[in-house]
Amino acid sequence: MIVALAGGVGGARLAVGLTAVLPPSELTIVVNTADDFEHHGLSISPDLDTVMYTLAGIANPVLGWGRADETWNFMSVLGALGGESWFRLGDRDLAVHVLRTELLRKGVPLSEITRRLMSRLAIEHPVIPMSDSPVRTRVRTSEGGELAFQDYFVRLQCKPRVTGFRFAGSRKAHVPPELRRILQGPVEAVVICPSNPYVSVAPILSVGAIRTWLRKRTFPVLAVSPIVGGNAIKGPAAKMMRELGADSTALGVARHYGDLVDGWVIDKADEKLQRPIEREGRSVLVTDTIMKTRARSVALAKRVVEFARSQAGHSPSTAS
Amino acid sequence: MIVALAGGVGGARLAVGLTAVLPPSELTIVVNTADDFEHHGLSISPDLDTVMYTLAGIANPVLGWGRADETWNFMSVLGALGGESWFRLGDRDLAVHVLRTELLRKGVPLSEITRRLMSRLAIEHPVIPMSDSPVRTRVRTSEGGELAFQDYFVRLQCKPRVTGFRFAGSRKAHVPPELRRILQGPVEAVVICPSNPYVSVAPILSVGAIRTWLRKRTFPVLAVSPIVGGNAIKGPAAKMMRELGADSTALGVARHYGDLVDGWVIDKADEKLQRPIEREGRSVLVTDTIMKTRARSVALAKRVVEFARSQAGHSPSTAS
Repeated sequence: MIVALAGGVGGARLAVGLTAVLPPSELTIVVNTADDFEHHGLSISPDLDTVMYTLAGIANPVLGWGRADETWNFMSVLGALGGESWFRLGDRDLAVHVLRTELLRKGVPLSEITRRLMSRLAIEHPVIPMSDSPVRTRVRTSEGGELAFQDYFVRLQCKPRVTGFRFAGSRKAHVPPELRRILQGPVEAVVICPSNPYVSVAPILSVGAIRTWLRKRTFPVLAVSPIVGGNAIKGPAAKMMRELGADSTALGVARHYGDLVDGWVIDKADEKLQRPIEREGRSVLVTDTIMKTRARSVALAKRVVEFARSQAGHSPSTAS
Repeated sequence: MIVALAGGVGGARLAVGLTAVLPPSELTIVVNTADDFEHHGLSISPDLDTVMYTLAGIANPVLGWGRADETWNFMSVLGALGGESWFRLGDRDLAVHVLRTELLRKGVPLSEITRRLMSRLAIEHPVIPMSDSPVRTRVRTSEGGELAFQDYFVRLQCKPRVTGFRFAGSRKAHVPPELRRILQGPVEAVVICPSNPYVSVAPILSVGAIRTWLRKRTFPVLAVSPIVGGNAIKGPAAKMMRELGADSTALGVARHYGDLVDGWVIDKADEKLQRPIEREGRSVLVTDTIMKTRARSVALAKRVVEFARSQAGHSPSTAS
């Protein structure tokens, strides 16, 4: 069993590759829910939806969120009626939010709702939200104080200068039963997908039960660098690193994760960073990491799984 | 001040005529809310929306509900994801339901939400829901027991045989402040629009405060017959009358309302019923009542207002 930790687009793309390489019984995808929020009375789970739409092959390739072939009639009327329209909800996408909200109100856990939605979209590999109870990223900024994540991320377009993050509700987060079973069973490796270290991966790692599990682990943790050539492929990861005084490079990310990651997958563009990362005590695989097409996602996933299996014999850093 | 009581399409069409004939200060449109319901977690007010869309000139002329130029992408995905799709919600229409639900959850009264929506759609005449608290039509049927209104009306397409109705919550309904002021001030006449007597008008008349107001009235009540040539222009009114043992004619409707209505407006097709209705002690105006176009709505409204004013001097039946 390989457990992949995923946020939005980067995580979703590697997940596509991993589902092509591993059967459903050997892969579990755990998804960040700390950027979930309530908007217009609807419960929205952006990362779960990005992973779901990407795995189903219906993700919007231009926007990087939402569905392909989307229409925006709901949104245009909502705006005309005076509703807030900074977070755009497509007509087709809306069906997921309405159904999820309805089921959550009836008391169905998010993990069970996710299972039903994935099953309707013929996704066979288990995709599990990191928590069935709300965890919410709060962004500390130098001027605007503490902001709700989507206020920072979408409404203010990541413009405020970041000074830190907290994940409200994460320590005592209610880990879904399906994930709890994984945490108790044998695991070959954990793969941290190339998602934002601060707002996609950190929330997952901050969930109490997951944190304990990783601290006591006897399996290796591999990560694909979300930073290539000093920049994030998508999103504000590099900007956040600079604002927090870190080096916005693959080496900076490796130092950020420290002992938690045993092996790094970095892009060929960063080949010169192989030795510096190895000097930090990590294994390094240099390969093509940009997943522009499905074929490249699959090729990368294959290398990542081989790398994970080659590391599986080694003692992980924290357990040495 | 003329107060019009309206349900769905027929009420909305006469309302269009009345708004053309009377200034906003001399007309109040009170709308049935007993077919409101909660579906997919959304608060839906079908009659309020039909009146709103019709007054705004954006009603769907083919369906008789919802908006013109509608798209159905939300609905098609909802169905594919396993959501109930018997009550169709258009993409544009959905914006109203989402906004209304959001505001209701925040504690904003339905009448205030209605005022804001109407104002956004540049509707100047006051349109007031009959109640700010939930009133729900329950349909008693010979086989299926008691049904929620939309289950009977939309899901079962009015097929069950009706034995009666009740309007849960109507006696102690919370009349909106704006309507309460109307009930306390001078009124020239009440006009009952050609809406279904059982499920559009009866719920309004069953609201405690409205019932008391009408019982003590010193103004006439006029009604436009919803039955023409033995049939309803739209909807199940005639079927209901037959199932309840009433004559499905304009005379049958006049007898159904009894003393409550002082003057009847009936269609030329029913001219032969003028004398029988007059023999019941009512005044009768015979004219064209089919509102196929906006011009015909305006023409009918003009006749109705003249008729109302000609009756205003007379003592109403119940006060005689």
